[in-house]
Amino acid sequence: MLPVESLGWRDGQLRILDQTLLPARCVERTLECEKAVWEAIRALRVRGAPAIGVCAAFGVVLGVRARQPDTAVLAEAAVRDVADYLATSRPTAVNLFWALDRMRAAASAARNSEEVEAFIGALDREAVRIWDEDRQVCRQIGEFGADLIPEGAGVLTHCNTGGLAAAGEGTALAVIAAARRAGKTIRVYAGETRPLLQGARLTMWELGQLGIESYLICDSAAAHLMRSGKVQAVVVGADRIAANGDAANKIGTYGIALLARAHAIPFYVAAPLSSVDPDCRDGAAIPIEERDEAEVLACAGVRTAPEGARAWNPAFDITPADCIRGIITEQGVLNAPYEASIARALADARATESAAHA
Amino acid sequence: MLPVESLGWRDGQLRILDQTLLPARCVERTLECEKAVWEAIRALRVRGAPAIGVCAAFGVVLGVRARQPDTAVLAEAAVRDVADYLATSRPTAVNLFWALDRMRAAASAARNSEEVEAFIGALDREAVRIWDEDRQVCRQIGEFGADLIPEGAGVLTHCNTGGLAAAGEGTALAVIAAARRAGKTIRVYAGETRPLLQGARLTMWELGQLGIESYLICDSAAAHLMRSGKVQAVVVGADRIAANGDAANKIGTYGIALLARAHAIPFYVAAPLSSVDPDCRDGAAIPIEERDEAEVLACAGVRTAPEGARAWNPAFDITPADCIRGIITEQGVLNAPYEASIARALADARATESAAHA
Repeated sequence: MLPVESLGWRDGQLRILDQTLLPARCVERTLECEKAVWEAIRALRVRGAPAIGVCAAFGVVLGVRARQPDTAVLAEAAVRDVADYLATSRPTAVNLFWALDRMRAAASAARNSEEVEAFIGALDREAVRIWDEDRQVCRQIGEFGADLIPEGAGVLTHCNTGGLAAAGEGTALAVIAAARRAGKTIRVYAGETRPLLQGARLTMWELGQLGIESYLICDSAAAHLMRSGKVQAVVVGADRIAANGDAANKIGTYGIALLARAHAIPFYVAAPLSSVDPDCRDGAAIPIEERDEAEVLACAGVRTAPEGARAWNPAFDITPADCIRGIITEQGVLNAPYEASIARALADARATESAAHA
Repeated sequence: MLPVESLGWRDGQLRILDQTLLPARCVERTLECEKAVWEAIRALRVRGAPAIGVCAAFGVVLGVRARQPDTAVLAEAAVRDVADYLATSRPTAVNLFWALDRMRAAASAARNSEEVEAFIGALDREAVRIWDEDRQVCRQIGEFGADLIPEGAGVLTHCNTGGLAAAGEGTALAVIAAARRAGKTIRVYAGETRPLLQGARLTMWELGQLGIESYLICDSAAAHLMRSGKVQAVVVGADRIAANGDAANKIGTYGIALLARAHAIPFYVAAPLSSVDPDCRDGAAIPIEERDEAEVLACAGVRTAPEGARAWNPAFDITPADCIRGIITEQGVLNAPYEASIARALADARATESAAHA
């Protein structure tokens, strides 16, 4: 059981595992500047809402250092520039904006530093703190979620939500890993997750590393799988959760949620509270990234559709809160009505944070 | 607008368009013997319930001819042998068994032929009749179904049900083509239909030939597509329909049917009455073909899952009758309760046939 690490930060160097090449090849890349970070996020070399946030935080450090500002005040302006730029890499995962906001706040707090190096040191520490917290949060999500998985269960998941999608053990996959560690015998079914096959390429790889019995299915087989009685729980991640509990996640998640409801199978979302966007009242306010048609017109790099064919390629969809049995967070499992439970969890998290800083 | 022909029969030669190579390459193959026919059906070189039936009928002629029986009685025994063998090529599409039964009946009727050539001529004529009838049936399905498609509609379909899947214009795609011919402006969304991508490779190709505005989607995008208000009707084919209206079709169809119901979008099945199996009381009695895991572990011939990964690969699923707004047949559109409407349509078809033979 190897640890799966999506990224590393050492001596001010950001290295990532290029996820577009997995599982055929394990290639590490060093991201030298903010442009390389932007490109790596855009091209899904780094992906998964928590991992994107951590990567962007380090991108801010790299970008400010490269500009060699003379004073902390100039450095703070550079942080704003770099953060604004990195925020344009992908539109849906809110962890990106959340992490950049934390970096802006850290910059603001350090703007009176006499030395630029001290300012950059504060930035560096904040990025590392985001990274460390993500590890801790993933562990807590795993532990809270494990209780929801029945002994002997078949568990369906979608896309990739493991160590590759986060700094720690992930979200939905952390729940699965923790259930297994707790001694439960489980069987996991992973949707391959077209168009970019994160389920086939990444989740099946991580499940293999974890030694968990697992089966790949075509995304379209989910309904028949449920009807066949092979699934007792669905656990997925989220890229953004609105204040009312509506959750944006990889395209296909909404369909799985409706199918789970039709088969009376509990459907859980596992995500850190940093995936909650209290500014989005509901799912309709979450922007949905539409990606290049070429991703659908080809499969694993091979053109499948005829020349001239068009495609429609939304990268995410919205699962309405009323399809979600529980949202598994680092503060525990939230239940409906979500407006209240989410607001309470956010308030608790803020209180814990204030206490830590007091 | 080119005619799309899945197969041809001339001078006792059976040629097929090898659908596994489309759309990249248009390769015709001549099937010389029953083994080649069996392999072509098994490997999905010929596919689609009606086309499989027609191909198998010609396979019987080829197989009997190759055995050079001395008498009509020996030839009839050969028909039974060949038909039993061809019946093992694929388990779900009932048109295969239906066409083989027709060939057995034709053989039985011709067993008193004095010349073997006369016997084989009768077989040949019966196979050609099945082929001709399929063309006629497809035309009628198209015409009855076209009325159900609203002007300006977005239509979702799955797998391939056009000229490649039948001898004629197909089933669900015939409905779409007829709606277009009737002057309706429609937009078609085709699910790519993993694992073998018949939607991407074949349906998008046929829609291009027909000049109909069309968009390929990942199968998992169907729910978000419906939620976005882009779909006003779903039309799919069927490989076998039970006496109660439950319908087996390409994996993913059942999920689409549940999603259509959740979005109050009408879901239609278009199929010839030869796809009805009155011996199956309901969908539970229909055998579901499970195909090689390798089809799911790879995509367009490229391995996507890590070494050692397992997969689950059912080729079909069952859509319960209560999800189906109407079954479009050559006898008209059947509605619930299907036990009664299907029984009546089958009785009418038998009466028409008897009158034709009287």
